[in-house]
Amino acid sequence: MDGVDHLAHERNKAQFDVDEMKIVWAGSRHAFHVSDRMARLVASDPVFRKDNRAMLSRKELFKNTLKKAAHAWKRIIELRLSEEEAGKLRFYVDEPAFTDLHWGMFVPAIKGQGTDEQQQKWLPLAYKMQIIGCYAQTELGHGSNVQGLETTATFDPETDEFIIHSPTLTSSKWWPGGLGKISTHAVVYARLITDGQEHGVHGFIVQLRSLDDHMPLPGITVGDIGMKFGSGAYNTMDNGVLRFDHVRIPRNQMLMRVMQVTREGKCVQSNVPRQLIYGTMVFVRQTIVADASSALSRAVCIATRYSAVRRQFGSQDGGIETQVIDYKTQQNRLFPLLASAYAFRFVGEWLKWLYTDVTQRLQANDFSTLPEAHACTAGLKSLTTSATADAIEECRKLCGGHGYLSSSGLPELFAVYVPACTYEGDNVVLLLQVARFLMKTVSQLGSGKRPIGTTAYMAQAEDLLQCRCRVQKAEDWLKPSILLEAFEARAVRICVARAESLSKFPNPEEGFAELSADLVEAAIAHCQLIVVSKFIEKLQQDIPGKGVKQQLQILCNIYALNLLHKHLGDFLSTGCITPEQASLANDQLRSLYSQIRPNAIALVDAFNYTDHYLGSVLGCYDGNVYPKLYEEAWKDPLNDSVVPDGFHEYVRPMLKQQLRNARL
Amino acid sequence: MDGVDHLAHERNKAQFDVDEMKIVWAGSRHAFHVSDRMARLVASDPVFRKDNRAMLSRKELFKNTLKKAAHAWKRIIELRLSEEEAGKLRFYVDEPAFTDLHWGMFVPAIKGQGTDEQQQKWLPLAYKMQIIGCYAQTELGHGSNVQGLETTATFDPETDEFIIHSPTLTSSKWWPGGLGKISTHAVVYARLITDGQEHGVHGFIVQLRSLDDHMPLPGITVGDIGMKFGSGAYNTMDNGVLRFDHVRIPRNQMLMRVMQVTREGKCVQSNVPRQLIYGTMVFVRQTIVADASSALSRAVCIATRYSAVRRQFGSQDGGIETQVIDYKTQQNRLFPLLASAYAFRFVGEWLKWLYTDVTQRLQANDFSTLPEAHACTAGLKSLTTSATADAIEECRKLCGGHGYLSSSGLPELFAVYVPACTYEGDNVVLLLQVARFLMKTVSQLGSGKRPIGTTAYMAQAEDLLQCRCRVQKAEDWLKPSILLEAFEARAVRICVARAESLSKFPNPEEGFAELSADLVEAAIAHCQLIVVSKFIEKLQQDIPGKGVKQQLQILCNIYALNLLHKHLGDFLSTGCITPEQASLANDQLRSLYSQIRPNAIALVDAFNYTDHYLGSVLGCYDGNVYPKLYEEAWKDPLNDSVVPDGFHEYVRPMLKQQLRNARL
Ligand SMILES: Cc1cc2nc3c(=O)[nH]c(=O)nc-3n(C[C@H](O)[C@H](O)[C@H](O)COP(=O)(O)OP(=O)(O)OC[C@H]3O[C@@H](n4cnc5c(N)ncnc54)[C@H](O)[C@@H]3O)c2cc1C
Ligand SMILES: Cc1cc2nc3c(=O)[nH]c(=O)nc-3n(C[C@H](O)[C@H](O)[C@H](O)COP(=O)(O)OP(=O)(O)OC[C@H]3O[C@@H](n4cnc5c(N)ncnc54)[C@H](O)[C@@H]3O)c2cc1C
Repeated sequence: MDGVDHLAHERNKAQFDVDEMKIVWAGSRHAFHVSDRMARLVASDPVFRKDNRAMLSRKELFKNTLKKAAHAWKRIIELRLSEEEAGKLRFYVDEPAFTDLHWGMFVPAIKGQGTDEQQQKWLPLAYKMQIIGCYAQTELGHGSNVQGLETTATFDPETDEFIIHSPTLTSSKWWPGGLGKISTHAVVYARLITDGQEHGVHGFIVQLRSLDDHMPLPGITVGDIGMKFGSGAYNTMDNGVLRFDHVRIPRNQMLMRVMQVTREGKCVQSNVPRQLIYGTMVFVRQTIVADASSALSRAVCIATRYSAVRRQFGSQDGGIETQVIDYKTQQNRLFPLLASAYAFRFVGEWLKWLYTDVTQRLQANDFSTLPEAHACTAGLKSLTTSATADAIEECRKLCGGHGYLSSSGLPELFAVYVPACTYEGDNVVLLLQVARFLMKTVSQLGSGKRPIGTTAYMAQAEDLLQCRCRVQKAEDWLKPSILLEAFEARAVRICVARAESLSKFPNPEEGFAELSADLVEAAIAHCQLIVVSKFIEKLQQDIPGKGVKQQLQILCNIYALNLLHKHLGDFLSTGCITPEQASLANDQLRSLYSQIRPNAIALVDAFNYTDHYLGSVLGCYDGNVYPKLYEEAWKDPLNDSVVPDGFHEYVRPMLKQQLRNARL
Repeated sequence: MDGVDHLAHERNKAQFDVDEMKIVWAGSRHAFHVSDRMARLVASDPVFRKDNRAMLSRKELFKNTLKKAAHAWKRIIELRLSEEEAGKLRFYVDEPAFTDLHWGMFVPAIKGQGTDEQQQKWLPLAYKMQIIGCYAQTELGHGSNVQGLETTATFDPETDEFIIHSPTLTSSKWWPGGLGKISTHAVVYARLITDGQEHGVHGFIVQLRSLDDHMPLPGITVGDIGMKFGSGAYNTMDNGVLRFDHVRIPRNQMLMRVMQVTREGKCVQSNVPRQLIYGTMVFVRQTIVADASSALSRAVCIATRYSAVRRQFGSQDGGIETQVIDYKTQQNRLFPLLASAYAFRFVGEWLKWLYTDVTQRLQANDFSTLPEAHACTAGLKSLTTSATADAIEECRKLCGGHGYLSSSGLPELFAVYVPACTYEGDNVVLLLQVARFLMKTVSQLGSGKRPIGTTAYMAQAEDLLQCRCRVQKAEDWLKPSILLEAFEARAVRICVARAESLSKFPNPEEGFAELSADLVEAAIAHCQLIVVSKFIEKLQQDIPGKGVKQQLQILCNIYALNLLHKHLGDFLSTGCITPEQASLANDQLRSLYSQIRPNAIALVDAFNYTDHYLGSVLGCYDGNVYPKLYEEAWKDPLNDSVVPDGFHEYVRPMLKQQLRNARL
């Protein structure tokens, strides 16, 4: 049956131009071609094979990752790949590795926080990978609370050096990726002390290992923190532990772009504004949102294809059974996730624009949009990563028992993805920051300070507190203005209600603490509105390709109406909509499911994922699931021998009733 | 610091008698003692060590499990343990193994479906483990739809044998635990064919492997299906694949309690009612609900203890930071899960009673309660396993970054637990069955047929459709009658509304299909009511011990009010409560969190879990988390050498710019 496309009948049903949708998904024709080329490059190279990962021991797994990283770098050099291409290539290699931190955190930290001089010294080394760096912030005792870090950097004016030291067990650096075994250098965050005085937490470039023999330098204890979730997943990464025993580094290895320590040990603020650093945060979080849409779309692609292959029940008179994708419960679980993948893609695209905008403003010394941009990226990071983690697991469940096999690709996708809910800011801690910003925004309404950016709708608070939803029949829910108004009204009303509750507390901080769970809900309402509104904005653009825009419109409506259903309590308790309107929304949602159904396979084809990248027997392009599942099974090492190792020692004595005398 | 109890101050805060709570949790004083003794026995035996699991290869892991299984059996024999004790011992060994299926499915299948003669022949062999059996139902192509199984059992009157055969690839047995490498026998489900006619799916005892050399018998292909979710988890189990090539078994190996095939190949119904078999299903699902409360309580115990140890933010003037358990967002995520653990425990206890009741009735040929009992256990299986799977992952996230380490115990707990949402009935498929039953019940209201058991409240449908919630102040929500009425009203109103929507479809089956997502919500509303009502019933009993009942009352209210908040859309859209009452419920919930807070640690101590069973550095009894985390890290094989394997081949050439010439 090789070469047969078992999903051809599904592909033929599509009512839109898949190739054009691929361009929309990729962001541009150019981006599509780069991505497509890199995906094929990786898929066709046997070194990048990944189907054997679940069977490797930690050491083998890790060694294999080193090999892939070196090979990827070799190909990047040989083919003279651009930065964009190199990034995509690493993306398709699809394995957490020390290089992620080197390129994603170490280099940006030096760029963002280093002086020009420091950048000139360190960046060329990093760009050529003559040094490999990581980002050592979190400690055993402190992650979320960065100001609580305990590692110290004490200036010694005698030698013009900083002494980096780990004074307690909990001050041990803990978690940095690439630290455990590979990095030669790290940006280490530590409390700056000069002249007996503390000056907050700053970054320092510290060499960790000899460039000759890779041994840790004197005073440095470093190692791997051990196994993490999953069998492959982040176990390809050497997240590390690091302790300093009075390690000395030259003064000029403190990253001094915003604050300098002089030869005399004086702290001097530079004329570069502190806020510049927030630009980096916006950048990193924007990439996390983009990654969310990648991970989510990958899971959705697998679950959608398998749901079209899998048949269960519903056979009349011994005929063919129903494809499980035709069950409304399956659709109700799956299609909103498909819609979310597209929604997150577009909001991620918009965040890229936001980052450019913020950067340009910062360069012009305009900090006015920064707090809003910061809150918005924090909130979207939280929203999209939480939703994606849950969605991957739901996709796994949508595949029934077979989703539990490693060969489905979904267990490892989950295991490798979930830490995104924790790193770069715990999702709940981030939502609390958003809530704080929202409460401030509400408190300033009417003060003449106009809310900007994604909070601009709050300027219409008075109207939104009064308005009544105009839906009278199910199709009314398809009107963007009606949808938007419902989401805006919900967000404003919840925010204003929370602000009122807060105002009853004599101590605002106590009030914030007491009501924090409710405040998180306000933040979520606001962030969901952002995603819905950016999707709607996208649809206001010109989108070429037969049927492409129509499909996106359906997906946008599914995304919004599903959220409305899930958070119905919000909409009803604030009087934004009536129970009857809610019921009409539900009717409309069901009808949208039927509309999207024939396009489902083509909509996941539009992600343009190779079978290599998907890494899933259930999600393979040709839908030839069962022979592949069967074949995979036999590769397990347990099948190397018919009678398993241990049988004669442990099971046979049991069967032969000889256990009593057996020495186990 | 060894021997210091870092949580002593928390334990001192408890306002109730922990020892008495332990009895309540265990179910009885006797059950507590058995459980306590077995837990210690396992914890103190080095063979049962499990902290090294994440580092073993699949083969080593599997071999280790065989050793533990044999050792457990040896101890059971040596100590002449009772069935209850043996069960508990296996529970605390805490590793999926072939013995689970032998005792949990193979033996019960023979007991439930075998004739007296068959039981006399096979059970003694199984009891002594002279044979080891598994339960081979699911195939590559069919799991949920048992009637769609393709394996055939064709009667050959010439030889008085059945010919067991796998006619297609998708008919390969796939998933049975214990099948892959260990079982000597299986109960195989196959379509019975005699005289060219099909007679549905039946169970057959089939020998798979030689009792001499353990080799598969002629015509049998059998192996392991490969790696599954997680690194340890279910990878200790040899879930298997099995194909038959015209394998012959004697006629008397068909399980013939309800239907017999005669020497001539005639099918004859016995006088044993078919329904008897449903009793087994009630039994198995009752154990699954009990397991849910175990898994959930375990995760909650880890997250609660760690939340009391972990401090982050909130230090005034360099003082000690706030315990994260004191943040209301943390409480709002954690305490409802603590409450759920107790709620599921009590509903599980009640299900045990239900099983006894059903069994007695069946023996007296009273089948009247069976459909209700069947729906109720299906629903509770679905509800508790879905909630538990989500809760374990939430507990992991509650531990921040450290929850992602294997040494936290939570990743593997999740990986090993989640298939409970799929096996013994996919949770969505089960809820659809419940919905079907509820729709039938509603349609019979007023017909004179009184709804019974957990649907008895529907007899008050008329009142419940009219009633208005009497809550006027927050404390009113503490009244059991008010809570119960709100949940009953919600369930009835949703069911009746769905029934009305259904009635508008000319074809009821089409209506059911179209509305199935909404129907699932009706089923959930009904099942949540069951859990709430059984918790309330429990509190009507006499519960001794200082403060014990008070704590349970708080937990019951937290459980119910949190559900109310999560499903607010249901309660508001059906007019069961007003937005103001919802807001009062929320106020009450916050106050309950404050009340439970000082008792949180003692409430998880009451589960009486040993550190061995918990298997978590973050959850250890003494709260001495950081030194243990640090120590664990160094045990990873990657730390065997300072410079990792692969460095010289792959990383050094990169650093030295010699990659271009390197042969990778
Ligand atoms: C795979 C992975 C890779 C990582 N890579 C790196 C790296 O390269 N470099 C690096 O420096 N770090 C890294 N980290 C660490 C990561 O940044 C931290 O784990 C993260 O910031 C969360 O902090 P925490 O672990 O201290 O969580 P905690 O803050 O301890 O969270 C525990 C719980 O407390 C709650 N909580 C905390 N504070 C509050 C509050 N104020 N209000 C309410 N609730 C609160 C949280 O919501 C959570 O439920 C990595 C982590 C992981 C898992
Ligand atoms: C760890 C593990 C251990 C197991 N052990 C055993 C064992 O020992 N013996 C054994 O025989 N089996 C075993 N199984 C198999 C298990 O019983 C099946 O996987 C389970 O019954 C689910 O069936 P499925 O895989 O066919 O799911 P499917 O039915 O294929 O489910 C796929 C999707 O379709 C949906 N769906 C299916 N039917 C409908 C419908 N009518 N309406 C709406 N939606 C529908 C489901 O909700 C799901 O989302 C095991 C499985 C696992 C994961």
